Amino acid sequence: MEELLHVRFLQLLALVSLLIFATAFVSQDPVQPQRPGPIAQPLASPTPTPTPLPPPTVRIDEYRAAAARIIGAALTSDRAYSRLAHLTDHIGNRLSGSKNLERAIEWALSEMKRDGLDNVRAEKVLVPHWVRGEESLAMLTPVPRKLTMLGLGNSVGTPAEGVTAEAVVVRNFGELERLGERARGKIVVYNAPFTTYGATVSYRSRGASQAARYGAVGALVRSITPVSLQTPHTGAMQYDPAQPRIPVAAITIETAELLQRMHDRGDRPTVRLKMEAKFMPDAESANVIAELKGSEKPDEIVLIGGHYDSWDVGQGAHDDGGGCIVAWEAARLLKELGLRPRRTIRVVLYTNEENGLRGGNAYRDAHREELAKHVLAIESDSGVYRPEGFGLAATAPLQVRANLREIAKLLSGIGSDRIAASGGGADIGPIMREGVVGASLDVDGSHYFDIHHTHADTLDKVNPQELALCVATMAAMAYVVADMSGSLK
Amino acid sequence: MEELLHVRFLQLLALVSLLIFATAFVSQDPVQPQRPGPIAQPLASPTPTPTPLPPPTVRIDEYRAAAARIIGAALTSDRAYSRLAHLTDHIGNRLSGSKNLERAIEWALSEMKRDGLDNVRAEKVLVPHWVRGEESLAMLTPVPRKLTMLGLGNSVGTPAEGVTAEAVVVRNFGELERLGERARGKIVVYNAPFTTYGATVSYRSRGASQAARYGAVGALVRSITPVSLQTPHTGAMQYDPAQPRIPVAAITIETAELLQRMHDRGDRPTVRLKMEAKFMPDAESANVIAELKGSEKPDEIVLIGGHYDSWDVGQGAHDDGGGCIVAWEAARLLKELGLRPRRTIRVVLYTNEENGLRGGNAYRDAHREELAKHVLAIESDSGVYRPEGFGLAATAPLQVRANLREIAKLLSGIGSDRIAASGGGADIGPIMREGVVGASLDVDGSHYFDIHHTHADTLDKVNPQELALCVATMAAMAYVVADMSGSLK
Repeated sequence: MEELLHVRFLQLLALVSLLIFATAFVSQDPVQPQRPGPIAQPLASPTPTPTPLPPPTVRIDEYRAAAARIIGAALTSDRAYSRLAHLTDHIGNRLSGSKNLERAIEWALSEMKRDGLDNVRAEKVLVPHWVRGEESLAMLTPVPRKLTMLGLGNSVGTPAEGVTAEAVVVRNFGELERLGERARGKIVVYNAPFTTYGATVSYRSRGASQAARYGAVGALVRSITPVSLQTPHTGAMQYDPAQPRIPVAAITIETAELLQRMHDRGDRPTVRLKMEAKFMPDAESANVIAELKGSEKPDEIVLIGGHYDSWDVGQGAHDDGGGCIVAWEAARLLKELGLRPRRTIRVVLYTNEENGLRGGNAYRDAHREELAKHVLAIESDSGVYRPEGFGLAATAPLQVRANLREIAKLLSGIGSDRIAASGGGADIGPIMREGVVGASLDVDGSHYFDIHHTHADTLDKVNPQELALCVATMAAMAYVVADMSGSLK
Repeated sequence: MEELLHVRFLQLLALVSLLIFATAFVSQDPVQPQRPGPIAQPLASPTPTPTPLPPPTVRIDEYRAAAARIIGAALTSDRAYSRLAHLTDHIGNRLSGSKNLERAIEWALSEMKRDGLDNVRAEKVLVPHWVRGEESLAMLTPVPRKLTMLGLGNSVGTPAEGVTAEAVVVRNFGELERLGERARGKIVVYNAPFTTYGATVSYRSRGASQAARYGAVGALVRSITPVSLQTPHTGAMQYDPAQPRIPVAAITIETAELLQRMHDRGDRPTVRLKMEAKFMPDAESANVIAELKGSEKPDEIVLIGGHYDSWDVGQGAHDDGGGCIVAWEAARLLKELGLRPRRTIRVVLYTNEENGLRGGNAYRDAHREELAKHVLAIESDSGVYRPEGFGLAATAPLQVRANLREIAKLLSGIGSDRIAASGGGADIGPIMREGVVGASLDVDGSHYFDIHHTHADTLDKVNPQELALCVATMAAMAYVVADMSGSLK
């Protein structure tokens, strides 16, 4: 009994000590322990900027009530999730040129009008129309077996009988260079383990032409992902105009490792790659636009958006159906709450981000005259996981950064109050290069690349509450930026 | 500066306190915090037995040197991994009745003879020969799309045109019962989330006949797994002779959730299931047996083994190529080290565990006369992850438990010294029911069911060091049990 009391006392002491322990570290402020950032988001980094910021010009006390209403409404509505469910379950994936994408565009236009949003319209864009067709990969020797694959977007196809060759395996471009002319007539296999998306994706985008330089007749690229359950990941590739165009496909980590082992043992495996992939004539598509017209400065624009097209596998749920729904629902929610800001909030669902970026370029060209009036452009294209805040372009004026940091304080209660040192997005890239300040909705990226561009990017991976938190985060930020009485810059 | 000192002091205090905190809980012993056990191993549980044990009769001091040599040799050899690589990469998966399985058997017999093991032989077994053939699943309405699937082993096929019906979704057998006659003419979809393998697998094994009771024309079963990247898991099913035999396939978590959502929304999805699955005439196969003949009591047997067949997808690396290699390599390593025990160590690579258990039953029948001389049978069929120890049959004599616990102390340095309260295995089940004391090699089961019975059960999932630790664990235990001067019981 005495021993038990002794133990209880020690436990009590320990619990108290633990509180002291916690306090000790919290009291170290202002150097906060760094939260993990989204994995491999090419344009974002969680490193805080060291430059001292000017005082904010926005007064967030005026917006506490609005932020509370926005967060409350987002977290009690199933609209975002049920719309994403319609888009993914009832329409499905949406590659540029596909009927699904055009069906999705029609549906959005009609629903946005029903929502009562302003100036709902489609802005036509001609998009590339790449089709996968039938495709397969098989090992012929030393052991015949089917191999799981997905052709890479924009790749040429093979002759009907396929391309059959020895598979030579390299772990990186350096090994390819050392292999040199021994790659001639072979199929080059890139078995580069995932580090970050930005670092590893070059094998997908440039691998075919690099291999073609040395006379390879095809290329296979280990999927750009940290994990696999025989999961191939597609994605865009680009040909170097100076090299012959050879067919290229993604293989799974499992297959890449199998070929590596065989290569290392001197088995000289031969494989046959068959792909019907080809381009059809460019197809008509559109950027979908809807607005919440500003009450005082309607010509000033806060742009929020994502890309509406997806790869032709899975459902394009996180990439980027979710991002589109977040932007759309943010505007709808503000409309429903009667929160019409001074400036215009413009929702843009871009077409053709995945294999052409024609939507982003077309938006820039069609709106060149009003780009100077774009106060801020926020893109959501990192999945709709738990939001962590925003990544603001590293080049953004310090006054913008100071104001976004201030506004983000309204989001501290839902944990999405971080303004990362850099950000942006592919679709808003063209207008950012014309001087528009860009930002990204940043989310927990731990699992995005598990499913990115795969059959497994499906609605079940989307947590409805996390999606709602993304909507709240986007809506609150867009509203305050669009409504603040002074200038954001 | 003063504040910084203050913070440092608080941190120091806190760290010291944390140690007190830890001590406070550790000092609560003898109730140790429970280590996580292997997930859902049907016959194993980490709960320690409450019965007081007799003192051990084995004297492990005599075996410290041998255990050290075994562990050292296992951890410096790549033989287990390179043999598993040959089995998986160069032979491949090994379903009963397949050429691959017979090729694997020939290879093992020849290699075991080269290893110098004793009495290497094949004991013939007639096995069922189920073939999958071509198979597919498609949603027809409300949205046409292909669905990923794997037919369940032993299922009948469909007519050539497939079975087309509305999919009705239930989460458990209770919901099916409430659905009752409304299942007539439908395809029943079981969307039961994974809890433990033992609890959830009944939908795979019994789902078809349960659905047939209510007139269903087919069944689809959510794969028995906690995670999925569009990953279907096959496995055996059994028909209730009293019900019509309807075709049944595994679907992915993604598809099960999609059908659930559609069902819940009243979409009444229709699907078409096509399967060519059928049984061919029984095929000749064999249990592979090799021994390290005992020096003093050669008729007393310590059996170690796994099952050599696998499903017809992936490579059967963890299930159970790895388990077979562990048993085989344990014997080979002892032979190489000149550690010939007093009793015989017998390696058995069982055929047809997955869809018939003919190997386990045949062994019992062929060795009925010597079952009383089987001192212990250890099966390795939970994957070859980091070993944690052994699961000993709950019914094992207390003296056996006391001795195994004592021997396991030799393995504490590699963390595989736990003797769990229950254990055994499918292949040794028939001889356990005849009175042989059975045990299982227990391993970290956290990821076994991610890949179990899938295309992703491939060599890349096997960590060579963990495999070597399994060999060391199995070899040391088998050696001491086979060599101890007194009786194990």
